[in-house]
Amino acid sequence: MKYDKARIHMFRVPENAELVENLTKYAVKNRVRTGWINVLGSVIDPVLGYYDKARGEYLKNKLEGFYELVNGTGNISLKNDEPTVHLHVAIADRNSHVYGGHLFEARVFMVEALIIEALGDKFLVRRNIGGNLWAWD
Amino acid sequence: MKYDKARIHMFRVPENAELVENLTKYAVKNRVRTGWINVLGSVIDPVLGYYDKARGEYLKNKLEGFYELVNGTGNISLKNDEPTVHLHVAIADRNSHVYGGHLFEARVFMVEALIIEALGDKFLVRRNIGGNLWAWD
Amino acid sequence: MKYDKARIHMFRVPENAELVENLTKYAVKNRVRTGWINVLGSVIDPVLGYYDKARGEYLKNKLEGFYELVNGTGNISLKNDEPTVHLHVAIADRNSHVYGGHLFEARVFMVEALIIEALGDKFLVRRNIGGNLWAWD
Repeated sequence: MKYDKARIHMFRVPENAELVENLTKYAVKNRVRTGWINVLGSVIDPVLGYYDKARGEYLKNKLEGFYELVNGTGNISLKNDEPTVHLHVAIADRNSHVYGGHLFEARVFMVEALIIEALGDKFLVRRNIGGNLWAWD
Repeated sequence: MKYDKARIHMFRVPENAELVENLTKYAVKNRVRTGWINVLGSVIDPVLGYYDKARGEYLKNKLEGFYELVNGTGNISLKNDEPTVHLHVAIADRNSHVYGGHLFEARVFMVEALIIEALGDKFLVRRNIGGNLWAWD
Repeated sequence: MKYDKARIHMFRVPENAELVENLTKYAVKNRVRTGWINVLGSVIDPVLGYYDKARGEYLKNKLEGFYELVNGTGNISLKNDEPTVHLHVAIADRNSHVYGGHLFEARVFMVEALIIEALGDKFLVRRNIGGNLWAWD
């Protein structure tokens, strides 16, 4: 999909919010139906996912404690007409070692967010077409 | 270079495509000559590069198996008048350990891509000026 | 904050420059007061930070040598009316192991940068409101 107009959102996610949930709420409230996400900051008790292809399901690794949020990369698209957030993150511990994967949840200590909202008549839609994938009519 | 107009591209890269090649094809087909790339998803058998400054060449680490694509950051510019993709990636294994570097190649399992196409009369050009660098006339 | 206009900056940071300082200089020179940063490339002797929540201060890890700059994610906002850069990075060694955190400093070998400048009347402001946070009047 191509969009010739975009709106830039830059904001701080509230402390103690759950990151994925809060970004989703932001998208719903601000009617962002298609967009790209970048975040950085620091988070607590993140739960990271790795897709186990053989089993067809996510493994979850719960990491305890405080981590620098080195990078979060994700997007917003519509699933059953609702804005849905898909976010991958890289996080670092006190020795600067980095862990990462699909983000299931994390508590926000301090997160700064960018959303590039794609403006237009057509939205990206996520459907179950052999996986939870972006589909186009 | 500064650009007052941009076009947002958001799309899914086809399963089993080679990621760098496919992004390059996309740029050629859609005439993207200068742009920024962000990707996330999952990839298979990625080949990562580390530039060995002393030898003046890339070392390659071939990682086998399935990895979460935590983040890919890159760009499109012109080299010999052709769109060229430069992409660095961070990938995570099933223990959420992260590996990264210059991406030589990777097979796509599921990749979602953003390209911010810079629109204007001037393009970023990559030349051999003591390295494969962006140059401006 | 929402911005309906943006300017795209894409440029190469000069070799041997200190990365954070140079991006700050770029922002000052080009009057970028609110923007988002993405970088990739390679850096030398990076100093990474981890915020020690209990002590209320950053721990610094100085890594020696040459690293691929896998991803840098950050932003520009105003602090005491001056453009300030906040940048987190993921870097990789020759074994493709990744380290990351808040970037205090790093010498540039080759860095390619994107800045998405948010254009408008209102700027993001960083203040000491129980931390060095984005604040809005």
